[in-house]
Amino acid sequence: MAVSLRKARTIIRKTLEKGREMDLKPLSVVVLDAGGHVIAFEREDGAAPGRFPIAHGKAYGSVMLGMAGTAQMQRAEAQAYFMAAVNGVYGGQVVPVPGGILLRDRKGAVIGAVGVTGDTSDNDVVAGMAGIESVGLTGES
Amino acid sequence: MAVSLRKARTIIRKTLEKGREMDLKPLSVVVLDAGGHVIAFEREDGAAPGRFPIAHGKAYGSVMLGMAGTAQMQRAEAQAYFMAAVNGVYGGQVVPVPGGILLRDRKGAVIGAVGVTGDTSDNDVVAGMAGIESVGLTGES
Amino acid sequence: MAVSLRKARTIIRKTLEKGREMDLKPLSVVVLDAGGHVIAFEREDGAAPGRFPIAHGKAYGSVMLGMAGTAQMQRAEAQAYFMAAVNGVYGGQVVPVPGGILLRDRKGAVIGAVGVTGDTSDNDVVAGMAGIESVGLTGES
Amino acid sequence: MAVSLRKARTIIRKTLEKGREMDLKPLSVVVLDAGGHVIAFEREDGAAPGRFPIAHGKAYGSVMLGMAGTAQMQRAEAQAYFMAAVNGVYGGQVVPVPGGILLRDRKGAVIGAVGVTGDTSDNDVVAGMAGIESVGLTGES
Repeated sequence: MAVSLRKARTIIRKTLEKGREMDLKPLSVVVLDAGGHVIAFEREDGAAPGRFPIAHGKAYGSVMLGMAGTAQMQRAEAQAYFMAAVNGVYGGQVVPVPGGILLRDRKGAVIGAVGVTGDTSDNDVVAGMAGIESVGLTGES
Repeated sequence: MAVSLRKARTIIRKTLEKGREMDLKPLSVVVLDAGGHVIAFEREDGAAPGRFPIAHGKAYGSVMLGMAGTAQMQRAEAQAYFMAAVNGVYGGQVVPVPGGILLRDRKGAVIGAVGVTGDTSDNDVVAGMAGIESVGLTGES
Repeated sequence: MAVSLRKARTIIRKTLEKGREMDLKPLSVVVLDAGGHVIAFEREDGAAPGRFPIAHGKAYGSVMLGMAGTAQMQRAEAQAYFMAAVNGVYGGQVVPVPGGILLRDRKGAVIGAVGVTGDTSDNDVVAGMAGIESVGLTGES
Repeated sequence: MAVSLRKARTIIRKTLEKGREMDLKPLSVVVLDAGGHVIAFEREDGAAPGRFPIAHGKAYGSVMLGMAGTAQMQRAEAQAYFMAAVNGVYGGQVVPVPGGILLRDRKGAVIGAVGVTGDTSDNDVVAGMAGIESVGLTGES
């Protein structure tokens, strides 16, 4: 099962709605496919200009490693040089903190990832999970 | 005048609609701000996975050089090594063909760019211009 | 409101004057626009040759993240691997220490950043703030 | 003999003055030292945001190869793949067209370079040479 553009759009829209509901700072949200390639992205007005690479880095590392942001952060805290090396081998495109959320189908296969950035990493996750649940998918943060 | 997320979304949606109306291949569309940073992006179902960097490269070169895709292509045809060098100084992020469309405000200042890819470069432009006109802006292709 | 070349020049000149008044080591100062692009830069005689990338990295990270140098340093001290990853996603162009100073307009929107390097980070900030205040802007260090 | 900041500033100021006198598009001017490192840079209001890397690329290639922009262009026209390779080995930082001007001392030793961009390459050179002559140096374009 692939993530359609229609679903990606809804994930983004509902993540942003949740952010406004929680009164978070302006969010930026990316949805990647199973190959780590961008399907859709939106940056809310007022967000810093460099938010795409951060959102992308959270989601990209998640897909490429098959490991969501929280697990990457634990690995980074235990072994910082390993995640620094991972950042290097993936061309500098990995941000190992919560907000990178894996999308899995019913059999558990990774079908993509969502990257959320703008508020605290924990709040980013809450908003992203709301977006993912709105399309009937299960996120792994 | 900055391009709002609301306007960027509409530009993308109307560009995709125009593409379907013209029966084009699946399109991908990015909107960048005046500093060349991503505001929004969408890739239609069925498009090749690597469409983000192509759409981005068309729009990014346009903003950074202040020169739309058609003018870049003319320069590349006259002096290929110059556009190759430009690609180098901008970190490999320039695709000098039509489909990179500058957005200008009423005084002529560049306020961002749209990048469209998926069909022929000429068709990409037609679709993108329809999207841009739908929000009352003027595109320079 | 954009930072004009005239203002950027004055910020640099007054920062260097303050440095000489405080008897600091030779300073280097860059001014970036709201998209993180260079408006002006000067390196004083006697400064090490590699000062441009340091000054630029302080200011560039500030604009891209919407977070000044002191806040970046605190984040780096709390979570070093996060700022290392951020450096990666921004192409190695982030130096997360004081001396990266955000420029805001009266409504609080980021309109650019100043990067100062050459003496201690704290002295760099004092000199840069003097330069910024000389043009009637408010710096966030 | 090193190029002082005072001289670099004057070169830039006089290049910009010449550009206004000739009614050129907004110019951007960089001055590099004998090691290819930035001493000073200015971008006129209204210039495209990506002008620093172009100005820098013209001057950097000149210093690194000891060959000014016109000679680099001739080499690129004769053997495009060679200049593409040079761009690669210097990290993508070479723009082989006129506007990269070598600075030499009285004995002929390279002491730095000036990079000018914004109008046609030929006009960029005319403005840059005026700037260089204003400080009593000889440019090789």
